[in-house]
Amino acid sequence: MTNTDDIFTIPAIAALDNASAIAAPERALRDALRHAIDTKTKPPGSLGRLEGLALQLGMIQRTLTPTVARPTIIVFAGDHGVVAERVSPYPQAVTVQMVANFVAGGAAINAFSRAAGIELEVVNAGVAGDLAGYDGVIDVPLAHGTRNFARQAAMTREQALIALARGAARVDVHARHGTNVMGFGEMGIGNTSAAACLMARLCGAPIDACVGRGTGLDDAGLAHKRAVLGAALERHPHGDALDTLATFGGFEIAMMTGAMLAAAAARMAIVVDGFIATSALLVAVHLAPAVLDYCVFAHASDEAGHRRMLDHLGAQPLLALDLRLGEGTGAALAMPLLRAAAAFLAEMASFESAGVSDRD
Amino acid sequence: MTNTDDIFTIPAIAALDNASAIAAPERALRDALRHAIDTKTKPPGSLGRLEGLALQLGMIQRTLTPTVARPTIIVFAGDHGVVAERVSPYPQAVTVQMVANFVAGGAAINAFSRAAGIELEVVNAGVAGDLAGYDGVIDVPLAHGTRNFARQAAMTREQALIALARGAARVDVHARHGTNVMGFGEMGIGNTSAAACLMARLCGAPIDACVGRGTGLDDAGLAHKRAVLGAALERHPHGDALDTLATFGGFEIAMMTGAMLAAAAARMAIVVDGFIATSALLVAVHLAPAVLDYCVFAHASDEAGHRRMLDHLGAQPLLALDLRLGEGTGAALAMPLLRAAAAFLAEMASFESAGVSDRD
Repeated sequence: MTNTDDIFTIPAIAALDNASAIAAPERALRDALRHAIDTKTKPPGSLGRLEGLALQLGMIQRTLTPTVARPTIIVFAGDHGVVAERVSPYPQAVTVQMVANFVAGGAAINAFSRAAGIELEVVNAGVAGDLAGYDGVIDVPLAHGTRNFARQAAMTREQALIALARGAARVDVHARHGTNVMGFGEMGIGNTSAAACLMARLCGAPIDACVGRGTGLDDAGLAHKRAVLGAALERHPHGDALDTLATFGGFEIAMMTGAMLAAAAARMAIVVDGFIATSALLVAVHLAPAVLDYCVFAHASDEAGHRRMLDHLGAQPLLALDLRLGEGTGAALAMPLLRAAAAFLAEMASFESAGVSDRD
Repeated sequence: MTNTDDIFTIPAIAALDNASAIAAPERALRDALRHAIDTKTKPPGSLGRLEGLALQLGMIQRTLTPTVARPTIIVFAGDHGVVAERVSPYPQAVTVQMVANFVAGGAAINAFSRAAGIELEVVNAGVAGDLAGYDGVIDVPLAHGTRNFARQAAMTREQALIALARGAARVDVHARHGTNVMGFGEMGIGNTSAAACLMARLCGAPIDACVGRGTGLDDAGLAHKRAVLGAALERHPHGDALDTLATFGGFEIAMMTGAMLAAAAARMAIVVDGFIATSALLVAVHLAPAVLDYCVFAHASDEAGHRRMLDHLGAQPLLALDLRLGEGTGAALAMPLLRAAAAFLAEMASFESAGVSDRD
């Protein structure tokens, strides 16, 4: 074994550790939680979807009085070699420019996070540029962007494993600071192409059902994107989930997958954002199906394919606001609903404690 | 004119003043707002429903940098004589008990308001009991509950006018404290019956389409409620919107109508809750159609009839979480979305200001 192999082996083991360390939520608490919810001063079931959300938070946190503590969103940024195939209407430089915008506080995810009291962290997973001079970026790039998966695998299997481990490491930092709810966002010109190919492989869906307009392709651009991605899928042999991630994924997607596995292992609730974040979750679910128990699905994105991805996972999103931005913006908008769900379960009086008459 | 008439005339004039004082929002700003939204650092339209919400807040507040300042929910409580017809599975005493629960901080609306940083006020509009001893209740009852509209009008036209004025007066207090976004909730055993009759009259809908299970009637209870309300609608002649409010309404509904008119006159955004709150808005719209420009529809309630009410108003609710509780809970859950919409418009960088490349 060479030194290089040693370097790769350590994070690989860590990544797999997280996948195997995800505990089943405390199902034994389900009856007690259901009883607590049903005896609150309200007609049974009248808080609708919030009741299921409160139940899930209680099971994840193993308590009848869940909290949303130090909610945090990490935005992972990475570039994609496949943009050489002209699959996005925006130039690749926008990825780095938007990272600068994030650390300056001027992007949508900044505004939403401030408005909702959410901690925000920006991670360079591998953009096509040098971010060493930017204060406020966690600068842990795998490379200056992935390779063009229309011609070769986007990254090596070893790079994918390192990205998983580095994503996990960021979650561990926030776990030590007391965060118990996390959302993950992304920035990367071209990453709807990566996500579409992950979806095609991991959901077994036809590529046309997976490809959308991304940041705003016209009809000709959409047809071209479909042709490029269809050809890429034919070029690469099928492999396991890690191979699929390495072949089509981005560094930001791979770090997000690792972060999701670590968040579940740390018994955090994971607020799943849109199309790209859900593609990262598809990989995580193949590595460790139990991660799904920790997931709250923030919203149904307007990007074609996201609804089908959610259906594949049996997921019911909380919001449907026609968003298609990414950055974790949907997760940020959903977090106040988690706060409300935890608050009603932890704080509301029961019919008995409040002296309110129950129904006749 | 007797002294009694004088007393009634003053608030009546005030109520009508509000209806006529509602200005059209600043439509001249629409193009400038649209431009500001489109040049933010995001693909055009990618914030979906939030973009329309930001536009509306900008027009209401007549600014390119809207805010959500001191968001406030007022819960109006009142009792309904029609409960003598056994239209609810809960005893009437629950209304007073829940008001006590509100001021003790133990109800769902308390938990949601605390979780989202919303000011909460509880108003006794006319419950069947004495609340003089409860600290924290704004105690301005019209009477100890309405009369049974299965037999006679729920209130006099004069009572309805006073209720409108008293609801408006509460909004004026919050306007002086700087509130620019308000939601209104209600508590009143039997008030889905009142709302269903208001809907039937003001939307011209068949009563069966307006009547739902309320707090949880079974099939037999639902059939009975339909029969009672159908007969009541046949008993009472048609009149204007104020007559309809007086005939079927509750004091809490009438105060809410007056509060909505005052909020629009004060150029506040109104966050419209569920079935009961929307019935109060139906009355307000008949008195002053311009009130609709100030309304944000929080959610589609699970109570049968609410969707049709929303369709009648051409309203698209932000949330669909299967809530059917009232108290303003849906409005509380939607307020963070208004905060997010105002924040992105007021705070996000533009492509130019952030130095981000626009699409090719």
